[in-house]
Amino acid sequence: MMIDLKACAAKLKASEKILLLCHAHPDGDTLGSATALSAALNAMGKEVLVSCSDPIPACFGFMFNGLKQYESGDFDLIAAIDVADTVLLGDENKEKYADKIALCIDHHGSNRLFAESVWLCPESASTAEMIFRLIGELGVEITPHIASCLFTGVSTDTGCFRFSNTTPETHRTAAALIEAGADSKNIIQVFFETKSKAYSALEKLALDGMRLYLDDRCAVMPVLQQMYAESGASENDTDRLANLPRQIEGVLVGITLKELKDGNFKASVRTHGDVDASEICKRLGGGGHPGAAGCTLKMSKDEAISALLAEVEKEISGK
Amino acid sequence: MMIDLKACAAKLKASEKILLLCHAHPDGDTLGSATALSAALNAMGKEVLVSCSDPIPACFGFMFNGLKQYESGDFDLIAAIDVADTVLLGDENKEKYADKIALCIDHHGSNRLFAESVWLCPESASTAEMIFRLIGELGVEITPHIASCLFTGVSTDTGCFRFSNTTPETHRTAAALIEAGADSKNIIQVFFETKSKAYSALEKLALDGMRLYLDDRCAVMPVLQQMYAESGASENDTDRLANLPRQIEGVLVGITLKELKDGNFKASVRTHGDVDASEICKRLGGGGHPGAAGCTLKMSKDEAISALLAEVEKEISGK
Repeated sequence: MMIDLKACAAKLKASEKILLLCHAHPDGDTLGSATALSAALNAMGKEVLVSCSDPIPACFGFMFNGLKQYESGDFDLIAAIDVADTVLLGDENKEKYADKIALCIDHHGSNRLFAESVWLCPESASTAEMIFRLIGELGVEITPHIASCLFTGVSTDTGCFRFSNTTPETHRTAAALIEAGADSKNIIQVFFETKSKAYSALEKLALDGMRLYLDDRCAVMPVLQQMYAESGASENDTDRLANLPRQIEGVLVGITLKELKDGNFKASVRTHGDVDASEICKRLGGGGHPGAAGCTLKMSKDEAISALLAEVEKEISGK
Repeated sequence: MMIDLKACAAKLKASEKILLLCHAHPDGDTLGSATALSAALNAMGKEVLVSCSDPIPACFGFMFNGLKQYESGDFDLIAAIDVADTVLLGDENKEKYADKIALCIDHHGSNRLFAESVWLCPESASTAEMIFRLIGELGVEITPHIASCLFTGVSTDTGCFRFSNTTPETHRTAAALIEAGADSKNIIQVFFETKSKAYSALEKLALDGMRLYLDDRCAVMPVLQQMYAESGASENDTDRLANLPRQIEGVLVGITLKELKDGNFKASVRTHGDVDASEICKRLGGGGHPGAAGCTLKMSKDEAISALLAEVEKEISGK
């Protein structure tokens, strides 16, 4: 059942022991949204656990500072935050909770509506934008810590206000969060304005391997396991590379093709204009947003490139 | 004399034939601010000319579309827009107008107060933010064209909302401009999300030549005339490089050192934290903001690097 902001707030108000599930390969939006909501629910006297199947990258560690984590395993509400599909919960949480999720709060238009109740705002650039409104509806003050968690979600899901999902509401939310004490300067410096020497080396290796296809309208940039070894960068650094292929003049579809440890490939697809990245990825078993989507390909690198190019060609033909 | 928003609006209302002067090496803020104000004054029935000593780069050409340029040379108000010092007007306009400037609208804290009346807001991230408020005070509607000119100024002077000068007011102005019809997606794509193949090649050459000094706390990246020839990029492309040296982890001061056609060097200095770029540049005859400033050095490359490092060292000692 689709529900609205008020009904979502009512569900949370009526619950006392709440589990908030993030998606696997966690990013700033799923973690910032869940930790901010957890802090707000803690302020209302509720017991909350934020859970993710994967380890939390160090750059997001600050979000858990001072957060009371309720770990008894006895919950009266299980909610998925920024999760479009149960498969995205990751193996551990999928197995434990996939059929018990009563509430989903999400902004992905591709949401599979797997939860009993779904508050979905595809027009929101981030789930964090929705959580900002939700916390207002819950009547809880936005503390500087909550503001920093949400600002991380708002900024990372919009490429720091550059992606086409950015709306006037995004900017107004950012303004309110900075006023509420978000450590915006530090967050932007860490996530957007700092490159480690290892990341710089990885970027250079990846850019050297980028190739153009389909009359230079599609750029594919493989990021291979050997590049991590050679550069000293970590796999988490790959997320920041995803926007580079689309930046080449004339490119409509930019693809970062990350080799996973098991030899399979994860494609991050970014598009310009009216080319729909989520359509391309859906046909390959993935999903996402019109401008940014992803899928996992269990095949060799060359097969993965061929499979992607076939779908890209269908999507851009005539554009 | 320092004046406020209302007094500034009154001066413009009382004038009929207005010259708006931009700074030389024009950027999105000086041109976006002057063209937006010109369009608003045109809507009030006034005759306006926007003038710059240097040619207008093609990427800003759209700002002049449909603008009525009044070229008779007979003005009752000469105003400088986003100009901190008469020397920044460039030779041609400095010679013609430096001693006749009745009004200056600017956001540079380093403004030399050369005009009869100065409306100065150093807390504004861009002059375009000020012009947005001024057009409101003048009672003129923000058309989509005016909104696009101002959005260009707001976004380019903040590195698209990344620089530390970005405030809640910046985000609220951006929200209002998008709602007024600013072509924000296209502006961001052109100025921040598109790299020509020539620019990509220039970036690679420049990054290869970047060196770290002062215990890796200062990065200097020379951009030489031969690199333009080798990459096919234009000198205007250099502006976009200015932020790269500061992005290296641990760097407090990032300097782009651009070789000019006459063999002299123009330094663009970007800093982190409480290191004051404008102090560094002021001592070398330039100026700017605490986080972003510049100066011209009439010496060889090695002498320029030595002169800059000496001033950087003074500024970062003990930090």
